[in-house]
Amino acid sequence: MAGAATAFPCSAQVGGCVKVRSEHKEWNESGTMSETYVHGYHPRENERLQDQAGTLVDLLHSDTAYPGGSTVLEVGCGVGAQTVTLAQRSPDARFTSVDVSADSIAEAKRRADRAGLTNVEFRQADIFALPFNAESFDHVFVCFVLEHLSRPVAALAIVKQMLRLGGTITVIEGDHGSTYFYPDSPAAHAAIQCQITMQREAGGNALIGRQLYPLMVEAGFDAVRVSPRMVYVDSSRPALVDGFTRKTFTAMIEGIRESAIAAGLIEPESFDAGVQDLHRTTEADGVFCHTFFKGVGEKGRQPE
Amino acid sequence: MAGAATAFPCSAQVGGCVKVRSEHKEWNESGTMSETYVHGYHPRENERLQDQAGTLVDLLHSDTAYPGGSTVLEVGCGVGAQTVTLAQRSPDARFTSVDVSADSIAEAKRRADRAGLTNVEFRQADIFALPFNAESFDHVFVCFVLEHLSRPVAALAIVKQMLRLGGTITVIEGDHGSTYFYPDSPAAHAAIQCQITMQREAGGNALIGRQLYPLMVEAGFDAVRVSPRMVYVDSSRPALVDGFTRKTFTAMIEGIRESAIAAGLIEPESFDAGVQDLHRTTEADGVFCHTFFKGVGEKGRQPE
Repeated sequence: MAGAATAFPCSAQVGGCVKVRSEHKEWNESGTMSETYVHGYHPRENERLQDQAGTLVDLLHSDTAYPGGSTVLEVGCGVGAQTVTLAQRSPDARFTSVDVSADSIAEAKRRADRAGLTNVEFRQADIFALPFNAESFDHVFVCFVLEHLSRPVAALAIVKQMLRLGGTITVIEGDHGSTYFYPDSPAAHAAIQCQITMQREAGGNALIGRQLYPLMVEAGFDAVRVSPRMVYVDSSRPALVDGFTRKTFTAMIEGIRESAIAAGLIEPESFDAGVQDLHRTTEADGVFCHTFFKGVGEKGRQPE
Repeated sequence: MAGAATAFPCSAQVGGCVKVRSEHKEWNESGTMSETYVHGYHPRENERLQDQAGTLVDLLHSDTAYPGGSTVLEVGCGVGAQTVTLAQRSPDARFTSVDVSADSIAEAKRRADRAGLTNVEFRQADIFALPFNAESFDHVFVCFVLEHLSRPVAALAIVKQMLRLGGTITVIEGDHGSTYFYPDSPAAHAAIQCQITMQREAGGNALIGRQLYPLMVEAGFDAVRVSPRMVYVDSSRPALVDGFTRKTFTAMIEGIRESAIAAGLIEPESFDAGVQDLHRTTEADGVFCHTFFKGVGEKGRQPE
């Protein structure tokens, strides 16, 4: 099971590797993060991202649709896993999807072409240096981005500048601390904790999902409403057992094995026992729970 | 904040006190649990239960309704907090609600009378010695009961005997391990862990919610379907801040203070710090998450 990690190009790079989560974006936060690992262009990584997007798409996106003619800025589109869903669900809206990685943008373009999308423009851009005029978008969409940033409120404030007055923002983030399962396993929690620790040490926050509400409020959005999107998996839901527990979450933890061990966070035997226990939850009597959080807010019309 | 605990009649009784959770039932599991503390007849306890039921009623019960003329057995009705909701939502069904505690049954009757219910019969009975003929009910309802039992599958198997072929069971349980919050706090988790430990040592399982699916399958129910009912609380939902975070969950943890300290599980200062941090989550930037699980299943028509 550890073999998969070494096939990931990030295996020797902690700063990048801990960002192997769900979707993958990387920002040069005004130079504060010097490592810029690009996800998504490796075939196996692509496959895993695709698995996840297919499994979670309804849970995360079913209530997001943009009116015809409206303009939507997607920041941190990565390889376009969410972009295709977004653009297909709002075929008459016009999307501008940016990512800091040229390779990811290239792959996202290929993916959009394969899907036959004509309403998306891709651009390479840093969230802290967006090449757009202020108030030039009706909506902003941010998915699995804030978890990687050391200054998430600053990032939200910047994308808020891009919004027209009365525009909306949609933010989706996971939360590794929301993960629990049956049979319970201290070893599995220890393996997950490695990911949380590594992401924290890289300047990110793997527990950011629960924090969406205060972050969005602090960034100045109005009418903020956050709702949890819990993935509940038992053996009566075999597509989730395979697509989420096994191929998304456990695969993600497996992917940090070498980095976690190299960082001295855990012994190989302990890590492997934890991963084994995560796989144990996919058996007939197993249960797995993980929660994403989705927040929406408005850029209020300020008094003149 | 610790004062509330001493006002609870269970404060010196670990076996009973850890059962101060949400709704309250106590079973003599064929003599395996010798301590039989009766909840619900103390005014302050009643008040807390009422707070909870009012807050959670839609989340837990909105999708439960029984056809007119059908017979429903509610096992472990306690003081009737769920009974009133159930009977009001299915006014043409006939309920038989049992609890092992005569005092709880007496209070439940008073509560049902105040609510003007005419479709509920209350009886004092032990789940392992139910005074009914086999296959005499169309439906069974079990809420916040299994968490207290050392043999939950045996209990489910017994209530299954009470069901007619083709009848349904509905089970609701919480899961203390599903609790997380912002700001995060090791002290708060340590205080919660005291409750989990005490309930385990009393023969129960405070983490049983996640386990509903395998338990119901093991007991022989068919078409088992479990869904999570997550309580997400931030300051945009003030009724939940007060009704759930403060008056239900934190009050429950506060209620075990003396017992946890007497049992040597935690130092008073640590416990109080944990409770303080739970209260901290009720501030404007705080978030609190807890999940209940609801399972439904059928008693299949066995081959002759």
